[in-house]
Amino acid sequence: MTAWTGWLAEQRTTRETAGLQRTLRPRQAAEDTIDLASNDYLGLSKHPDVCRAASDAVLTWGTGAGASRLVTGTTTLHADLERALSEFTGHEAALVCSTGYHANLAAVTALVDRHSLIVSDEHVHASLIDAARLSKAAVTVVPHNDVTAVRDALAEAGGRRAVVLTESVFSVLGDASPLADLADVCAAAGALLLVDEAHGLGVIGEDGGGAVRTAGLAGHPNVIMTATLSKSLGAMGGAVLGSAELVDHLVNRARPFIFDTGLAPAPTAAALAALRLLRDRRLSPAGIHRRGGELAERLGVPRSAGAVLSVPMPSPGAALAAQADALATGVRVGCFRPPSVPDGVSRLRITTHIGPDDESWTHALDVLTAAVRRCRT
Amino acid sequence: MTAWTGWLAEQRTTRETAGLQRTLRPRQAAEDTIDLASNDYLGLSKHPDVCRAASDAVLTWGTGAGASRLVTGTTTLHADLERALSEFTGHEAALVCSTGYHANLAAVTALVDRHSLIVSDEHVHASLIDAARLSKAAVTVVPHNDVTAVRDALAEAGGRRAVVLTESVFSVLGDASPLADLADVCAAAGALLLVDEAHGLGVIGEDGGGAVRTAGLAGHPNVIMTATLSKSLGAMGGAVLGSAELVDHLVNRARPFIFDTGLAPAPTAAALAALRLLRDRRLSPAGIHRRGGELAERLGVPRSAGAVLSVPMPSPGAALAAQADALATGVRVGCFRPPSVPDGVSRLRITTHIGPDDESWTHALDVLTAAVRRCRT
Repeated sequence: MTAWTGWLAEQRTTRETAGLQRTLRPRQAAEDTIDLASNDYLGLSKHPDVCRAASDAVLTWGTGAGASRLVTGTTTLHADLERALSEFTGHEAALVCSTGYHANLAAVTALVDRHSLIVSDEHVHASLIDAARLSKAAVTVVPHNDVTAVRDALAEAGGRRAVVLTESVFSVLGDASPLADLADVCAAAGALLLVDEAHGLGVIGEDGGGAVRTAGLAGHPNVIMTATLSKSLGAMGGAVLGSAELVDHLVNRARPFIFDTGLAPAPTAAALAALRLLRDRRLSPAGIHRRGGELAERLGVPRSAGAVLSVPMPSPGAALAAQADALATGVRVGCFRPPSVPDGVSRLRITTHIGPDDESWTHALDVLTAAVRRCRT
Repeated sequence: MTAWTGWLAEQRTTRETAGLQRTLRPRQAAEDTIDLASNDYLGLSKHPDVCRAASDAVLTWGTGAGASRLVTGTTTLHADLERALSEFTGHEAALVCSTGYHANLAAVTALVDRHSLIVSDEHVHASLIDAARLSKAAVTVVPHNDVTAVRDALAEAGGRRAVVLTESVFSVLGDASPLADLADVCAAAGALLLVDEAHGLGVIGEDGGGAVRTAGLAGHPNVIMTATLSKSLGAMGGAVLGSAELVDHLVNRARPFIFDTGLAPAPTAAALAALRLLRDRRLSPAGIHRRGGELAERLGVPRSAGAVLSVPMPSPGAALAAQADALATGVRVGCFRPPSVPDGVSRLRITTHIGPDDESWTHALDVLTAAVRRCRT
């Protein structure tokens, strides 16, 4: 046994002792369960128009982009998607990346460096935390959704470039960010507000245009946005949205964009088709909020700002038990345990989907109410 | 104008003055040019079997994985691809990520921390450099392919966990790494050798099994491998390969894997179909090396270890002029300028493809010889 194999074994033992060992469980294509665990809230990943667009793109463009977007990896399909994304969210320009993680890394690392300041909400997604680390900027972590703390932190910026990191709908707790107040504070301090709309795009606003546009902040000179194409849009990839000058800067300077192969044609075309369904009002996120409200009431937890309902459980074991209980009766939900939770509290993470019919949804409400009640006590 | 818009404008002016401003140029689906710029060396992104597999996957699985691999984002398609990848490269296990950048970040950040040592070849890819930065480990950069320098750097590790970073075929210069010697040095020091096979998989070895397997190092207790699915395999995504214990560790600890939506079904199926073509010897990388040798001889540069031929040019302007010259006569090649080159030397980056027929290839040889001669002087 080498020192490395010994270390890997030790690490596993530590996880097992803490009840935190996780394994991948491959699922089949056809399942009998009701999916309230994935982020495909609108069911767009299986929408016939979206699937046809992806399938056609493979036949037209092939299965890969072939190179970095700066070499030959930019197709007119990418340009079309970027135009559609910027129009739909109200920004001047968009840059499509391979993942939401790439988008956050690209935006943050190209804008700040070791001489800059990042002010980060304590609940932001791991990709923003990693982006801040990679940028080498000084980081001030502020209490969740605390606008005064953000203002105070920015007052310490001095002459440094400063960026404030938040999400429109937080990925684990499902609550919203005070975007208008944060934008005001940023404008007053000359700072930039980066809003991750991973869980806002396709969910917030009558047509799903996102929280930034709904708050009237799209195009605000101190506000930029990132998003993912892998959640409500049912595809894969990420994007940064803002001014044309911002996108030009990222194309030239963002290493996680430059040194990566372009997003493959199939997910690019799928995201574009999904956006068009929302834009043309052939699909609406309203059902997410209606169903989410019913579920929150039944479980006695606060309503979510978006599609993610957070249900705190007394322990990692109780969360796992409730999840298993629900799955045994046909409903799949997520289970978040440390280190994937910002506050250390294990929880069920239930996502509201509009895909299941009303009968299935009623069944899911009953199953989840029973499972949570049984495992909370 | 805000401070931020002023800063973006200044940055652009600096790039323009240095002749380094870049823009995205969307390409059409059908082009008359001979592509010697992308990394789709084997033409697999347009192979009918690969395209059919991707198209079928969309119809069976939908257009997105829907969630993190740890939630519902792992399908049996991912498991099949991981089995095929590990069998083909000779490793015990594989973990598929959304991009090669994700794979490198996942492997490095899960293995080392601020108490560890990274010894990095000065020519490794940006994704490995970023991975090292993100890990917060101490980093010693050693001269290119200098095994003695690696040994000396490891001698300073003391009790720290140490990882050595290299590539089997370097992405810009196209030369090979002394893998067997590096593995010996790592084994003697108790260090781990991470070999990025982004440009080795599908290219090195009679069937394209990669340089690690060809050197008899697959399964070596001190050697792990990363790869991309977006180059020779014509798809999108990345992978980490090694022991089952390594993969288990990454599933539990690698943030760039955990906090990312799974690779979409279409590129997953495409990579699997591409691997099967190579495994079943229905396609061979031999033509890459034969054509690459011809091209190197005509241009008077050293042969490449893989498919990437590096042609140094006297200036960024000369490199751009040669690229434009070649494109005007129907041949598309890459052009690398600072900051995308490890040695600061601008160059043409020509990738050998087996797709073009012999007549097209002969034409490309003539075009490139003329363009390089004209612009070098």
